[in-house]
Amino acid sequence: MNEKRYSLGVDFGTNSVRAVIVDVSDGETVGAAVHEYQRGEQGVLTDPSNPHVARQHPAEYHEGLEASVRGAVEAAGADADFSAERVVGIGIDTTGSTPMPVDEEGRPLAFRADFEGNLEALAWLWKDHSAMGEAERITDLAQEYRPEYLGRCGGTYSSEWFFSKIWHCLNVAPEVFDAAYSWVECCDYIPALLTGTIRPETMRRSVCAAGHKAMYAEEWGGLPDSDFLGMLDPRIAVLRERLYERAYSSNVPAGKLTEEWAGKLGLRAGIPVAVGAFDAHYGAVGAGVGEGTLVKIIGTSTCDITVASKARGTAEIPGVCGVVDGSVLPGYYGIEAGQSAVGDIFNWWVTEICKGGGDLHEALTEQAAALKPGESGLLALDWNNGNRTVLVDARLTGLLIGQTLHTTRAEIYRALIEATAFGALTILNRIEEYGGPVEQIVNCGGIAEKNPLVMQIYADVTGRRMELSRSDQACALGAAIFGAVVAGEAAGGYDTTEQAQRAMTGTKDTCYQPDPDSQKTYGELYKLYKRLHDSFGVAEHSECLYDVMKRLLGIKQRIVDTG
Amino acid sequence: MNEKRYSLGVDFGTNSVRAVIVDVSDGETVGAAVHEYQRGEQGVLTDPSNPHVARQHPAEYHEGLEASVRGAVEAAGADADFSAERVVGIGIDTTGSTPMPVDEEGRPLAFRADFEGNLEALAWLWKDHSAMGEAERITDLAQEYRPEYLGRCGGTYSSEWFFSKIWHCLNVAPEVFDAAYSWVECCDYIPALLTGTIRPETMRRSVCAAGHKAMYAEEWGGLPDSDFLGMLDPRIAVLRERLYERAYSSNVPAGKLTEEWAGKLGLRAGIPVAVGAFDAHYGAVGAGVGEGTLVKIIGTSTCDITVASKARGTAEIPGVCGVVDGSVLPGYYGIEAGQSAVGDIFNWWVTEICKGGGDLHEALTEQAAALKPGESGLLALDWNNGNRTVLVDARLTGLLIGQTLHTTRAEIYRALIEATAFGALTILNRIEEYGGPVEQIVNCGGIAEKNPLVMQIYADVTGRRMELSRSDQACALGAAIFGAVVAGEAAGGYDTTEQAQRAMTGTKDTCYQPDPDSQKTYGELYKLYKRLHDSFGVAEHSECLYDVMKRLLGIKQRIVDTG
Repeated sequence: MNEKRYSLGVDFGTNSVRAVIVDVSDGETVGAAVHEYQRGEQGVLTDPSNPHVARQHPAEYHEGLEASVRGAVEAAGADADFSAERVVGIGIDTTGSTPMPVDEEGRPLAFRADFEGNLEALAWLWKDHSAMGEAERITDLAQEYRPEYLGRCGGTYSSEWFFSKIWHCLNVAPEVFDAAYSWVECCDYIPALLTGTIRPETMRRSVCAAGHKAMYAEEWGGLPDSDFLGMLDPRIAVLRERLYERAYSSNVPAGKLTEEWAGKLGLRAGIPVAVGAFDAHYGAVGAGVGEGTLVKIIGTSTCDITVASKARGTAEIPGVCGVVDGSVLPGYYGIEAGQSAVGDIFNWWVTEICKGGGDLHEALTEQAAALKPGESGLLALDWNNGNRTVLVDARLTGLLIGQTLHTTRAEIYRALIEATAFGALTILNRIEEYGGPVEQIVNCGGIAEKNPLVMQIYADVTGRRMELSRSDQACALGAAIFGAVVAGEAAGGYDTTEQAQRAMTGTKDTCYQPDPDSQKTYGELYKLYKRLHDSFGVAEHSECLYDVMKRLLGIKQRIVDTG
Repeated sequence: MNEKRYSLGVDFGTNSVRAVIVDVSDGETVGAAVHEYQRGEQGVLTDPSNPHVARQHPAEYHEGLEASVRGAVEAAGADADFSAERVVGIGIDTTGSTPMPVDEEGRPLAFRADFEGNLEALAWLWKDHSAMGEAERITDLAQEYRPEYLGRCGGTYSSEWFFSKIWHCLNVAPEVFDAAYSWVECCDYIPALLTGTIRPETMRRSVCAAGHKAMYAEEWGGLPDSDFLGMLDPRIAVLRERLYERAYSSNVPAGKLTEEWAGKLGLRAGIPVAVGAFDAHYGAVGAGVGEGTLVKIIGTSTCDITVASKARGTAEIPGVCGVVDGSVLPGYYGIEAGQSAVGDIFNWWVTEICKGGGDLHEALTEQAAALKPGESGLLALDWNNGNRTVLVDARLTGLLIGQTLHTTRAEIYRALIEATAFGALTILNRIEEYGGPVEQIVNCGGIAEKNPLVMQIYADVTGRRMELSRSDQACALGAAIFGAVVAGEAAGGYDTTEQAQRAMTGTKDTCYQPDPDSQKTYGELYKLYKRLHDSFGVAEHSECLYDVMKRLLGIKQRIVDTG
């Protein structure tokens, strides 16, 4: 008798959506499909007059959901054991904070003819930074009147987040703001769509989105109070009533798959769909996050995620994007940190400056790998897209120091990789300082998978083993894990997230070990990095930087001499 | 009756030698020829294991002298008035400090078979920085024991200069040092060669080389005393006796053209050859330098030269490479400053990083010209080859700040141009602070001639008119001016340098005027440049740099908004 049961995970990224059907017993993929977004530049709609704008049309989500899931089901059909009837649950993750304005029925305004072509009526993609001014103002107000709100989100409210974007919309496109009955995160919209609960009153919102991006916490009654939101604008205090009271972890079902969507996707109606969450958080779950295990998802940007038991009691870590109850694993504080640009910086160098493509990435990686730490005399700050953790400041920019008339593009490429590693170490140190020891680091994401040089440098800079997630689609696997959890053991899934993770996740045999010599040099370089970091990133910091260039030259000379 | 008289100027550059025959009445060129050096990379011999090494074989000078002068004489022959008999004097300029070891007869050791292939036995080209350690030690010793020596050369003795190089040779190649009877500057060797005075005892040395590079001054008895040189190494104190007692301005003849060289060059034997000097100093003379007139020679690096009357009495300007009696014009203090890399930085960006050639220089210049000051949000320090003035520190390196994921290569190209302009302003301010007002700036050199964008940015950054030297071969013209001066009025030349300059130099009609809007923005940017300059370049300087990135973003936003 065939006992196999399957779970579906759907991962909505910045440029595409990926559906994965996994075997619930071991997490192995039996069918997967990717749908690329169609509008704008790989799904991202921009404003030529404002480089901070990044939007997405929700039609991408409807189209992508159907195409990717049908594709995954079809692909799984190659496995004789598989049958769509045996899919017991669904999990959904998306980018975020990616809020969109919706009408009273929960329908995105972007679908209305009168808002066609209006960028403000679309989904405001996570990487949209147009609300920098509003974010600064929210931070200032919260510092003065509600410091507790900031304690959970690292001390600074970001331009990437929910209320910054809504307020900016009010300021630049009041007609859109006024037409919006409510605003919903992408990760709330899709489970609601599948379960027929898109009306704002019936929708179950994600605590991951709410806690990390909207200053939600049960202990102060949910979202920020209306007095506070009224300081932003009285209309935002009014909007609060049409947002939500409660938010949920993903072990809670958003509802059951409707007949309509079951038909579209080729699945069984009535199976549970988990409350959604952000891609990085599910990626961490799919990569085996737990207490003492940090998961790094390394792609165009990075997300660093771990959890801390409530017993340990660390609810605030300065400069860390968020510490939210239940946002990653139910029963634990989820801790989220990250770097605003990692792969994006390497791509900028290769594409925009060197005018190359994938081949050049490979060539520069090969040349960079032949260099020793410190040999180039270069040092960079990884701030080309601001600094998310630990400075939480979008108004920071890149810095490169140490270049001579002989500096090569491969040397700079390596210096940029090293800069992101130093940024990663800064985050790790901060998490350990407040959240306790990190005993294991598991990496996933495109760069972790594809660039051994980056992983080796990360090992050498941090002095830690860099492990790799067994699944190379950790986000979608994390979604499938929650699909199995909302199904429950009785339906062939699991009753707890820990049980599901134990069965369905693991690490690869490949692992990067720190090299002691490199580690030593990077120790010296990190001291210099940290001084630049503090001098340019921390207000009121004052220190003589005169020796920085000299020390870099000294290290360079020593490395060359000892050849 | 044909009254025309001519003067020959020969300008020995880093990669080639140029001979120019000019009409003594107005400085117009009647014949010119260039000879490219043959050895190494365009005449520069390097050491793959040490990027600081830059040497040149003196055979280049022999070959180049003959080829270029014969070529110029031949070219002048196209003018019916011309006859080689009517060439009344010769002037020679070279790069420097470019010393070479010679034997008792004055013959370069490089010509000896036993030193063939020995880099240390060659001429040590001006841009050789291998003696950085020795330079620092000389500076330290002079600071402690002979501060007056440093007062004249900007407070720091450079790795590019005479004694640093000789001492480094002693340290790394004692067999060469021991075999050397004396050391001569290239600018002393060539006039001596032409006049049969190469024996160290008979050679007339240039006060320009002696005063700017070898701590020579009449008031303390010529070269540094032997007690001081003995602190470097007792053998250098011994060498002092085989160097020279006196040095001369270029209105003094080195001697008369020998029969042998007259034959080789196709000129009349017995005409006077002026004491040599450095290319930049002659360039200044050829461009019309005088009190209140600053000449900027802008090429791969720059040289900024002006003069001050002794009545004004400014013999020391901190951080300025040299203030030397008679080194530019007889009877005035010559003031020399400069930037270690200007065109070299633009070339580095285009060639090494962007992998382009002359076409790309043009394309980037065009794109950069379309940008407004401040629009890129970038700021750079022009230290890729260290800082000559006002910091006099070879152990400084480049810095670029403000880059985002959208920063383009043209924006960086412009930021590098602006960085060199800010460096130029820093020099100008220092000269005015100590040496009195600069009323006129005359530019010459390849970049001044060819890149209007650079000149416009220099005008906007400094707030001064940028004029261009009428002659586009100002160095060779300067040499010819001294050829006319040593000939004297009786032979058809001039009795004073001022008379010769008045007749033979001038400026072009084209002139770059500062644009008030650009000037205002650059005023703001310069404040930020100066803070980076001081934080990274001045020991003990301590200041918070936190606001630098923010201010750049603020300026950028304002420029974009006011579009």
